[in-house]
Amino acid sequence: MATPLTPNPAYKCMTKLFSHILLIVLFLTIVESQSIIESLPGYSGSLPFKLETGYIGVGDLDDVQLFYYFIESERSPKDDPLVLWLTGGPGCSAFSGLVFEIGPLSFDFDKSSRDSPTFKLNPFSWTKVANIIFVDAPVGTGFSYARSWEGYSITDTISAAQTYSFLRKWLLAHPAFHKNQLYVAGDSYSGILVPIIVQKISDGNEAGVKPAMNLQGYVLGNPTTTPHDDYNYRIPFAYMKALISQKQYESIKRNCKGEYINVDPNNTLCVNDLHTVTDCTQKIYSGQILEPTCSLTSPKPVGSKLDASLLGEDAIHLLSLTQVPELWCRSYNYIFSYIWANNETVQRALHIREGTIREWVRCNASLSYTDDVFSTLEYHRNLIKKGYRILIYSGDHDMVIPHISTYAWIESLNLTIATDWGPWFVDGQIAGYTMESYYKKSRLTYATVKGAGHTAPEYKPKECFAMVNRWFAYYPL
Amino acid sequence: MATPLTPNPAYKCMTKLFSHILLIVLFLTIVESQSIIESLPGYSGSLPFKLETGYIGVGDLDDVQLFYYFIESERSPKDDPLVLWLTGGPGCSAFSGLVFEIGPLSFDFDKSSRDSPTFKLNPFSWTKVANIIFVDAPVGTGFSYARSWEGYSITDTISAAQTYSFLRKWLLAHPAFHKNQLYVAGDSYSGILVPIIVQKISDGNEAGVKPAMNLQGYVLGNPTTTPHDDYNYRIPFAYMKALISQKQYESIKRNCKGEYINVDPNNTLCVNDLHTVTDCTQKIYSGQILEPTCSLTSPKPVGSKLDASLLGEDAIHLLSLTQVPELWCRSYNYIFSYIWANNETVQRALHIREGTIREWVRCNASLSYTDDVFSTLEYHRNLIKKGYRILIYSGDHDMVIPHISTYAWIESLNLTIATDWGPWFVDGQIAGYTMESYYKKSRLTYATVKGAGHTAPEYKPKECFAMVNRWFAYYPL
Repeated sequence: MATPLTPNPAYKCMTKLFSHILLIVLFLTIVESQSIIESLPGYSGSLPFKLETGYIGVGDLDDVQLFYYFIESERSPKDDPLVLWLTGGPGCSAFSGLVFEIGPLSFDFDKSSRDSPTFKLNPFSWTKVANIIFVDAPVGTGFSYARSWEGYSITDTISAAQTYSFLRKWLLAHPAFHKNQLYVAGDSYSGILVPIIVQKISDGNEAGVKPAMNLQGYVLGNPTTTPHDDYNYRIPFAYMKALISQKQYESIKRNCKGEYINVDPNNTLCVNDLHTVTDCTQKIYSGQILEPTCSLTSPKPVGSKLDASLLGEDAIHLLSLTQVPELWCRSYNYIFSYIWANNETVQRALHIREGTIREWVRCNASLSYTDDVFSTLEYHRNLIKKGYRILIYSGDHDMVIPHISTYAWIESLNLTIATDWGPWFVDGQIAGYTMESYYKKSRLTYATVKGAGHTAPEYKPKECFAMVNRWFAYYPL
Repeated sequence: MATPLTPNPAYKCMTKLFSHILLIVLFLTIVESQSIIESLPGYSGSLPFKLETGYIGVGDLDDVQLFYYFIESERSPKDDPLVLWLTGGPGCSAFSGLVFEIGPLSFDFDKSSRDSPTFKLNPFSWTKVANIIFVDAPVGTGFSYARSWEGYSITDTISAAQTYSFLRKWLLAHPAFHKNQLYVAGDSYSGILVPIIVQKISDGNEAGVKPAMNLQGYVLGNPTTTPHDDYNYRIPFAYMKALISQKQYESIKRNCKGEYINVDPNNTLCVNDLHTVTDCTQKIYSGQILEPTCSLTSPKPVGSKLDASLLGEDAIHLLSLTQVPELWCRSYNYIFSYIWANNETVQRALHIREGTIREWVRCNASLSYTDDVFSTLEYHRNLIKKGYRILIYSGDHDMVIPHISTYAWIESLNLTIATDWGPWFVDGQIAGYTMESYYKKSRLTYATVKGAGHTAPEYKPKECFAMVNRWFAYYPL
C-alpha cells in the first residue's frame, strides 16, 4: 500500500489534470480583465506605445484584485527584458512609478491645468528598452482593491506573496513573455518587497513551479533595506551634507552612542541633541535636500518612518490653492495625478472597475499595513549566492534612505571587488559613482546618482535611463 | 638742540603744509580720472543706478593705476554702508564681482549673442542697500595696469598695501562718504587680502592717518584663509559629498595621515590613494560639484591652487565654438564678459585709458604674483579683538574652498557662542545654516548657503542678498 506521501499514478494524473484545469480557468479569468488602451485623456492622439491595463486576483478566492499597467518595450518586446516594477511607500501607486519616475509619460507642468492635466512623452522612459509591468501593490494602493475588509489587512510577507502570485498569473496570461529575461525592480520601500519576491521566484523555479521564470536579477533604487539602520544613517548624512555642524554631530555621536532611533528617554543629553537635529532638518525636503519644501502638512522630524511630504498627501490640500505659487515644488506636479486619476473619463479609459475604490491617491498612507520584515539583508546575502545580477542605485542627495546606509550594507556583504568606486559618465559628465562586486557568477553593481534624490529617476531621468540601459545590456555603467 | 626725532615747530608746520599740498595735488589727479557713466553698451536706456569709473594711482610715483567701478546705493547713498569689494583669483576682475556675483547688472544669457552681449538687471544686487567700490586689484587685473614692468611684480603684501592706499585716496576724493559705515569685502582669494587690508585700516585709524575711516567690519565669501588647510579639506569634503567612497577615504586618511598636500613621494600607498581621488574628482566642476564641467582646458587635479575652469580662461577657447552647446555651462556665460569688455565702444564708455592693457580677461592667471601670506588666521584672531563685525559665508557645494575648512578655522578661534548652528530662512525655505560667536564687542557670523558654490552669490543671489541685507542692518540672519 502506498503511503500518503507517494500518491498512486492515477491520483498523480488526476492532480495534474486538475491543476491544468485550474490554470485554464485562471487564465480565462485573467484574460477577461486585460484591456489594450490606445488613447488616454491628457494625451492627444494615439499612445505611441502599447499599454495594457488589467486586474489579477490573488489571495483566497482571488479576494485581492491587483491592478497593473503593462507597457511593452518600444524597441523589441520579444528580446527586451521583462521588468516587474514596484513603487514604494508602502502604498505608492504604480502610476507614480510610471509618470514620475521611469515610465513613458510625464505631466507637462507648464501646459497642465486643474481642468486638464496634460502629458508629455518622457524621452528617458525605461520602456524604451524594457517591457514593464507597473503593479499597484499591495492591495489598497492605486486602483488595487479587495473584495472583503480582511483582504486589506496586510504585511510585508503577505504583500510579497501576493505580488509573487500576481507575477505568476500574469506570466500565465502572457505566454509570449515566458522566455524574456525577467527582472524584479522597484524603489524606496520596495527594497523590502523585491528581495523577498525574488527569493520566492528563485525558490519556485528550483521547486519546478510553473511557469518557470527566466529570472536574471533585480534592480533597487534608494531602497529601504534595514529600516532601523537606514533611518539611523540620516544623522551622519545630515552632517555630511552640512545640515548639522561638526560640533553638533560629535556631540550627538558621543551622547547617543551612534543609536538615534531607539533612544533611552532618560538620556537627556542624547534627547536634547536629537532635538537640535530636528530643529536643523525638519524644514528640509528630505527627498532631495536642496529642493524647496512645500508640504502644507506639518513637517515630520527625522526618525519618522517616511516623510508625509514624500508620500504626497499634501497634493490634496494643494488643490485648494487658487494661484500658481511663485516657487515651483515637486509636490505641485503631483496634484495633477490626483486630478487625473480621479476623473471618471480617465477611469473608464483605464478600464477601472466601477465602485471598487473610493478615491485614488498617489500614495496611500492609511493602508492597514504591518511591517513584519525588519531587514532584507539576509535575502541579499542569500540571493548573491545564486548567480543573479543585482543593480542598486542611490540618489546621493536623498535623506530618506541615505546613500551611506546603502553603501554600508553592500560593504557588509564582504563580496570581492570587481571594479572599485569610480565615476560613471553620461554625455561626458560625471553622473555619479559606481562599484561592482561579485560572488562566483553573481554581480552586484552599486551606483550613486549625483544630485539625485528620492527616488533617483525623478530627479535625473537621463542619467538613470543611461544607467539601466547599459546594465540591462550587460555593459559596465 | 632738538633731537632728530622731535622736529622743531617750524619744521612741523612745513611738513603739515607740504602734506596738505600733496593731498590737494593727489586729489586733483584723482578728480581728473573720475567719470560718471550714464549708459553702457548692452544695456538699453540710461543706467538705473549711479555708476562712476576711474583710476587711482598707487605705489611709487603712482606707477600702478588701479581701475574701479563705483556704484552708489540705490536706496540711500548717504546712510547706507560703503563697501570695498575685491574679487578673488588673484587676478579676477572687479567686473566679475559686479556682473556675476553681487552687482546690479548680469548678462542675459538668452538674449545675448557673440555680437551683442546684453545685460539685464539683477534684482538681488547688493547695491540695493550699499555703496560699492569694485576695484580691479591687484595690478594686472581687469583694467588696472602699471606704467612700468616692475609695477607688475606683486605679492600678497604689496597687493594689500596698494589696495589700502587705493581706498585712502578714493575716500579723499569722495568726502561725501567719509561718514558712511565702511566694510571691506570680497570672496575666494580675497580671503587673504581683506583681513590684511582691514588690519591696515585699523592700524591707520589708531595712528591717526587721514582720512579716518569709519570701519565697521568685513565680509568674506568662500574665502581662502590658510591655503594649505583649505586645499587639504578637499579630501574629506569629497568623501562627505559622495565623490569618493568611505573605504577610499579611510584608506587615504590612514596612508597619508591626514596630509594630502605635502605628500612624501616615497609614500606609495598615499600617492596611489591620491591618484584614486584624482580619478574620482578631476572631472567634477569644483566650483559647484553638481554643475556640469565644461572646461576645454585639461582639468587640474585636486591639490592644485585654483581650478583653471574657475578662473574662466576657457572662455577664450569657447569663443571658437560655432554652435550653441546643448548643455548650459556657467563658463559659457563668462564668454560674454570677454567679448563685451574687449569691445572698443565699451572701453570708451567706461573711460578706459587707451593703450593701457593689451587684452581684458575675466580672470588673469598669468599675473606675476608671489604668495607671501600663507594664512590669515592670525589676522582674524587679532581683528576679532578689536570690536569689528565679521560675516563669513560659504556655498556648501564648493570644493575649491570647502565649507568644512572655513568652519574649522572659525571653531579654532575659540570664541564664545552667541547662537549655535541652526537654519536661516529666505521665503520660508532653509537658505543655509548660521552660527554667531563673539569676543567682547566683536561679532563673527558664519553662514553656509545651501546648494551654493564658489562663490555663493553667483549660485544663490536671492539668498545671499537677503543675508547681507539683514547683516548690514544688524539683524540676525
